[in-house]
Amino acid sequence: MKANRTLIGELSAEFAGTMILILFGVGVVAQVVTGDGGLGDHDSIAWAWGIGVMLGIYTAGRISGAHLNPAVSLAMAVFGDFPWRKVLPYSIAQILGAFVAALIVRAAYGDAIASVDPGHTHATQGIFSTLPGNGDAGLGISLTTAFADQVIGTAILLFLIMAITDAKNSAPIAWFSPVAIAFVIVGIGMAWGTNAGYAINPARDFGPRLASFVTGYDGAWVTAAGDVYFWIPIVAPLVGGLIGAGAYKVLIARFLPAEEEAEETSDLPAAA
Amino acid sequence: MKANRTLIGELSAEFAGTMILILFGVGVVAQVVTGDGGLGDHDSIAWAWGIGVMLGIYTAGRISGAHLNPAVSLAMAVFGDFPWRKVLPYSIAQILGAFVAALIVRAAYGDAIASVDPGHTHATQGIFSTLPGNGDAGLGISLTTAFADQVIGTAILLFLIMAITDAKNSAPIAWFSPVAIAFVIVGIGMAWGTNAGYAINPARDFGPRLASFVTGYDGAWVTAAGDVYFWIPIVAPLVGGLIGAGAYKVLIARFLPAEEEAEETSDLPAAA
Amino acid sequence: MKANRTLIGELSAEFAGTMILILFGVGVVAQVVTGDGGLGDHDSIAWAWGIGVMLGIYTAGRISGAHLNPAVSLAMAVFGDFPWRKVLPYSIAQILGAFVAALIVRAAYGDAIASVDPGHTHATQGIFSTLPGNGDAGLGISLTTAFADQVIGTAILLFLIMAITDAKNSAPIAWFSPVAIAFVIVGIGMAWGTNAGYAINPARDFGPRLASFVTGYDGAWVTAAGDVYFWIPIVAPLVGGLIGAGAYKVLIARFLPAEEEAEETSDLPAAA
Amino acid sequence: MKANRTLIGELSAEFAGTMILILFGVGVVAQVVTGDGGLGDHDSIAWAWGIGVMLGIYTAGRISGAHLNPAVSLAMAVFGDFPWRKVLPYSIAQILGAFVAALIVRAAYGDAIASVDPGHTHATQGIFSTLPGNGDAGLGISLTTAFADQVIGTAILLFLIMAITDAKNSAPIAWFSPVAIAFVIVGIGMAWGTNAGYAINPARDFGPRLASFVTGYDGAWVTAAGDVYFWIPIVAPLVGGLIGAGAYKVLIARFLPAEEEAEETSDLPAAA
Repeated sequence: MKANRTLIGELSAEFAGTMILILFGVGVVAQVVTGDGGLGDHDSIAWAWGIGVMLGIYTAGRISGAHLNPAVSLAMAVFGDFPWRKVLPYSIAQILGAFVAALIVRAAYGDAIASVDPGHTHATQGIFSTLPGNGDAGLGISLTTAFADQVIGTAILLFLIMAITDAKNSAPIAWFSPVAIAFVIVGIGMAWGTNAGYAINPARDFGPRLASFVTGYDGAWVTAAGDVYFWIPIVAPLVGGLIGAGAYKVLIARFLPAEEEAEETSDLPAAA
Repeated sequence: MKANRTLIGELSAEFAGTMILILFGVGVVAQVVTGDGGLGDHDSIAWAWGIGVMLGIYTAGRISGAHLNPAVSLAMAVFGDFPWRKVLPYSIAQILGAFVAALIVRAAYGDAIASVDPGHTHATQGIFSTLPGNGDAGLGISLTTAFADQVIGTAILLFLIMAITDAKNSAPIAWFSPVAIAFVIVGIGMAWGTNAGYAINPARDFGPRLASFVTGYDGAWVTAAGDVYFWIPIVAPLVGGLIGAGAYKVLIARFLPAEEEAEETSDLPAAA
Repeated sequence: MKANRTLIGELSAEFAGTMILILFGVGVVAQVVTGDGGLGDHDSIAWAWGIGVMLGIYTAGRISGAHLNPAVSLAMAVFGDFPWRKVLPYSIAQILGAFVAALIVRAAYGDAIASVDPGHTHATQGIFSTLPGNGDAGLGISLTTAFADQVIGTAILLFLIMAITDAKNSAPIAWFSPVAIAFVIVGIGMAWGTNAGYAINPARDFGPRLASFVTGYDGAWVTAAGDVYFWIPIVAPLVGGLIGAGAYKVLIARFLPAEEEAEETSDLPAAA
Repeated sequence: MKANRTLIGELSAEFAGTMILILFGVGVVAQVVTGDGGLGDHDSIAWAWGIGVMLGIYTAGRISGAHLNPAVSLAMAVFGDFPWRKVLPYSIAQILGAFVAALIVRAAYGDAIASVDPGHTHATQGIFSTLPGNGDAGLGISLTTAFADQVIGTAILLFLIMAITDAKNSAPIAWFSPVAIAFVIVGIGMAWGTNAGYAINPARDFGPRLASFVTGYDGAWVTAAGDVYFWIPIVAPLVGGLIGAGAYKVLIARFLPAEEEAEETSDLPAAA
């Protein structure tokens, strides 16, 4: 009974934290895309996603560890002590939070989207989920490159989440780690956003993609060229997260001194 | 007597903190609008409002809790232990601080405004208070959307103020929370500024609107189309704040462990 | 003897700290002006000045309190416990640091300046010191407005330095206050940079102005229209600083509880 | 044996930390250059390099002190207590980390580079390493200016690393110093990026330059005008780092009080 109650709280926190993340993340893309340059640009997108992750972690950190991302939950099960039986429930709560947040953005930006893209085409579908080359076919990004990009981006994410939250390493104090992790997201947005729009999170991509599909975007699952795309920002981040967390273990963790310095990093539970 | 003296200090702090907020917030819009792209853009507006909130909280936090916003005072009365009898005095002090700060901006930017908009039209009235679609009629934002947007934006604000200042949750240490809350404002500016210019604060909107009206902006109370608008950024934030604070209680607070960890978050009184 | 040695150290620290400030501050304007949009814009200027102040304080805080600004030294003598006999030596060290740093920028950017402005006109003199309307005569900024703007901007600066470093108020811990003060500068740059280029510091303006004059800018002391201008960003900040520090005393300090909470703000001496 | 094991860990950390730095640093230039304005600008480059340094330090700080830069290792050997015998191994690990990271960026951005610069000319070689005037010959930056610029930029870097990590000075707490140092990099990018693209790190420049050479950029070692250039961002930073660290000793360190306040700055070992 106690455990069930605990799990319900954790799922509520993952739901709420991911909802906060997406209210900022999908919200900023909606603002930039419909604002046509006057209400922000690619840098605003990078900052607001970082802020969304920071605030999602402040929301959910205490209760659930604030994974907010199935790739984090999976890597924590493989390399940390997160129980396997919670990976699927966490992932579902994260997708639900992203889905509900995307519906709220969809409704709030309905007038603006109808003004700039009455046909609900790929021009504004990119508000909700990612495409190769950020939807710019002229860059010639192949599906292979997009897949590899999502593996790399999520590997960087998990490597650094491990580095920043490992109490044996040079971790900042726990209450500051949401800010440090926000900078990881901002940096990935600025440096790894070209090939595939840096989903690096299956829930962040699938939830809003589904929300766009059920609200009039028939082409949500495919690229402009008609290739089925939705699975890449699901599968590649799961793979990349394992590679990044594993690389942290090999390159850094095994060289760390054994004693834990618990007093420096105590107040968020599993962190993320 | 003691209580009166305390209340006077609190009102002075709310007045000064909100004045600081508006000196940066209305100041940056004045700079961007009169600078015509050369002295900043929408991102500068997002950052400077966040900075204004941060510095307003550093100003007033110790004495009054730094609400700086009637929607915060109301939500703290309903969901926190802020006494109801102070809600109105706090709100008046906040509006007064915003009003005085807006008059200072109005005077300092008088030359520049006279150069770019000699008729004192809606083109520069938007320096002081908000309009649907940030004044861009082409986006087709309805009054209903603007109202809903202000409810959502203020709900996000109060949800996150609760999350960041709740000592039982994963709150940062109190002296850092003004920075964390600044990021909430920056993020809302980047992601939720399209539909209604993110007032999310009745004092921020009404005080400067009044200041613009008494200094030559006859159209301050209505939209370009003539709709009476001023009440939306007053009523909708009050409603949204209650929804956001309530959502925090339902989704997060009731799952938190009972013991308070007071040592981590002690030095700002009521915070915000 | 001990006191002399102490004063020499303090002046060396004020020299070095102000040099760091100007290496970033005048450097960024040189980069933006000669880069013609490709190497930064007004926001870069706002951020880099903030960063310069932060790093100047980290440089000099321990030894001299890191005033870096005669308006700060004067206000600290009037409202704090900074000894009057040090105001002039501090100011001279600050001006010297700014002068040397501006000479370094002048030399390093010599090629670039010669390319874009071979006549060394007001087009690039604004790299070094400030002008009404940032040198844009079209905005119609009067000398009176420029003077008032510098009073207001420096009043905001000193009000907030007092608020952020007052151990009785909601001050952040001392090692973080350079970051908080950096945000004051960034915010002033974004919101109060239109009328007079936000010198808000006589040393920041006079030292580099002198450096430009001795290296070929004959028109350094006047506006494009020929008005003698250099005294405004000297006199107005000194006045404004006193007003701002006094306003802090009236609106906030007298309402603060008497007991000092020294443990929270101990490691920078006089701060600023 | 113990010492060897320790050294291997340190080299692994320097390798991994520099790899993280370059994955963000070269990555952001790749994104901005191939994105043609739509995916970031010079400010994104400044921020993402700062973020890369911050995250590289969080990665390697505990194990190796996170030099990530041969100019830091050399200056720490001359002015700190870093053992001379480790300078060369550290430098090689740093160059290797930068080389591998640049190869990853080269592969991931291969499609985009091939689209915008099929001939692999200097137009995209600048993604990987630096050139005078950022490759803009119109600015007329001489090799002498570029050399002097790299001396100045690296002097500022080492002066401030010393100031920020010196426990006797006004240093922030160790877990925050990666953030403070990130701001040094952001500021240098904004104020000292015009003349030579702010390498300020031989490993950051040589590793990616080599990576570009082995993957099809035949002109990697020379300027567009054919001058041999690669040695300048190697030699000048080594010289500048010594000047900056020495200036810190002369202007600040010798005036500091003798007692160390170890409790404030304990958890990163050699820092940087």
